[in-house]
Amino acid sequence: MNILVATEKAFSPFAIRQIREVTEAAGFTLVLLENYTDKSQLLNAVSTADALIVRSDKVTSEVLNAAIQLKIVVRAGAGYDNLDLQACTSRNVVAMNTPGQNANAVAELVFELLLYQIRGGFSGKTGSELRGKTIGLHGFGNVGKYVADIARGFGMDIYAYDPFVSERVMKNNSAKQSTDINEMYSKCKYISIHMPLNEKTMKSVGYELIKKLPQNGVVVNTARKEIINEDGLLKIFEERKDVCYLSDIEPDCKSVFEEKYKGRYIFTAKKMGAQTEEANINAGVAAARQIVDYFTKGIEKYRLNK
Amino acid sequence: MNILVATEKAFSPFAIRQIREVTEAAGFTLVLLENYTDKSQLLNAVSTADALIVRSDKVTSEVLNAAIQLKIVVRAGAGYDNLDLQACTSRNVVAMNTPGQNANAVAELVFELLLYQIRGGFSGKTGSELRGKTIGLHGFGNVGKYVADIARGFGMDIYAYDPFVSERVMKNNSAKQSTDINEMYSKCKYISIHMPLNEKTMKSVGYELIKKLPQNGVVVNTARKEIINEDGLLKIFEERKDVCYLSDIEPDCKSVFEEKYKGRYIFTAKKMGAQTEEANINAGVAAARQIVDYFTKGIEKYRLNK
Repeated sequence: MNILVATEKAFSPFAIRQIREVTEAAGFTLVLLENYTDKSQLLNAVSTADALIVRSDKVTSEVLNAAIQLKIVVRAGAGYDNLDLQACTSRNVVAMNTPGQNANAVAELVFELLLYQIRGGFSGKTGSELRGKTIGLHGFGNVGKYVADIARGFGMDIYAYDPFVSERVMKNNSAKQSTDINEMYSKCKYISIHMPLNEKTMKSVGYELIKKLPQNGVVVNTARKEIINEDGLLKIFEERKDVCYLSDIEPDCKSVFEEKYKGRYIFTAKKMGAQTEEANINAGVAAARQIVDYFTKGIEKYRLNK
Repeated sequence: MNILVATEKAFSPFAIRQIREVTEAAGFTLVLLENYTDKSQLLNAVSTADALIVRSDKVTSEVLNAAIQLKIVVRAGAGYDNLDLQACTSRNVVAMNTPGQNANAVAELVFELLLYQIRGGFSGKTGSELRGKTIGLHGFGNVGKYVADIARGFGMDIYAYDPFVSERVMKNNSAKQSTDINEMYSKCKYISIHMPLNEKTMKSVGYELIKKLPQNGVVVNTARKEIINEDGLLKIFEERKDVCYLSDIEPDCKSVFEEKYKGRYIFTAKKMGAQTEEANINAGVAAARQIVDYFTKGIEKYRLNK
């Protein structure tokens, strides 16, 4: 079996060593196409691959048509908008992601954003503290749970809203269940968003919710930017001078913030929540393990195109 | 009794309201000298004061000589190098600080510094995570304990070295006791310094200790800058390209860092560890309470000039 790692942006050497260990221990052959610069290189390399590991590389029907032996493709990471799932299904290729592997990386970024904002960077201005404050987690999946762990260390009062997660799971992770999202936004000084992007969540956080925040409320968005209704966000910023928005990626309305709301936002230069050595290693190794488990035991736990 | 609050940099109005409540409830009179710009204003104001609350304002023998009624001076904060203790003693003035009130503020700054450094700010470069890493606390007083609390939330492996604190206290705060400082520096990727400045600690962290740090070691210093032996620090930076130094205040050798070690340091614009609204309020109110307790009950718990 040929396992191809095809990455425009290479894994770290340490990650590759571990991926190699996992695949070779199962008797498979690891093939590397790192830092490729032209699609033709990818099309050529996939022609002999039985399994494919990618990062943000686009797996289109063109790629799948060239991959005549391919049985499984795994996106090393949680998001998978770079995989054409329909094309995978019609070509009988199993598609997977590796959820949870970068959850802690994202959670730690939440606190980098929060601390930097409320302390005024390193300017020496008088800031404020997290201890004893309320934080509301909008979504309580892998990332939300890590955020709750860290927030507990900071002595915060933690609430969580997630219709798909039980009160017991929340309680085990130090969070109190909120059953009313409006109420959670009303009582939490800090809101951290941890929802996937889908039809229901698209633009679901806007004027009505954010206006409920208490004085000096802060919204932290390390999920997709499309979760936010930016028109509503701008309306709130127009109405209230105390609210802040911290986002792991620039919103479309960035220029308005730059012009009018200096000091009340942080936007990372590019999506960086999952960008840690640890997350990259974890996701790559998880991808290799999932491929081995699929071929040797038929395990399809993280299959996306069921 | 006249309680004078004399501050070049004023407390917040909220803090003053609480200080007023505490002093007036005890039947004392609160007098405010806020944002004074000339020493003569201070010398004039202290002449009728029975008690004095200051922040970083210098209480010299000149001030004490003008304060003919003064019985107690309290520094709202932990450090007290602005109080001339000897002069207080010879004038029979009780001198106190308010330790612990800003400990959490300092502890939170440690994590702002650490997260910002290891994630590369908000640049989107690949960073690293705190979870699962080792942190060594050099000094385990009020700040060290809060740092341990937060580090536990981040899932870190916590060690502490402090000859004045028992293993039991450390264990109750999630830290493992290190009895050998050299060994602690050898095994901890992150070292956070939480010692007061005195003859023994002055320049006590230098070449021999820092060189023991593992690969990519980071020293965080939110204590006084004089704890560091800067010659030794510079020697290590010359020898190793992987070590970082994060400091709450610029070291004297700042210009060398700026010239040669870009990306391997953070220096705050001015000492900001204790600069939060919460800490300022806590310290001011604690100072007022300690004065009331001293006059009404003779309590001298935080007396510095025993």
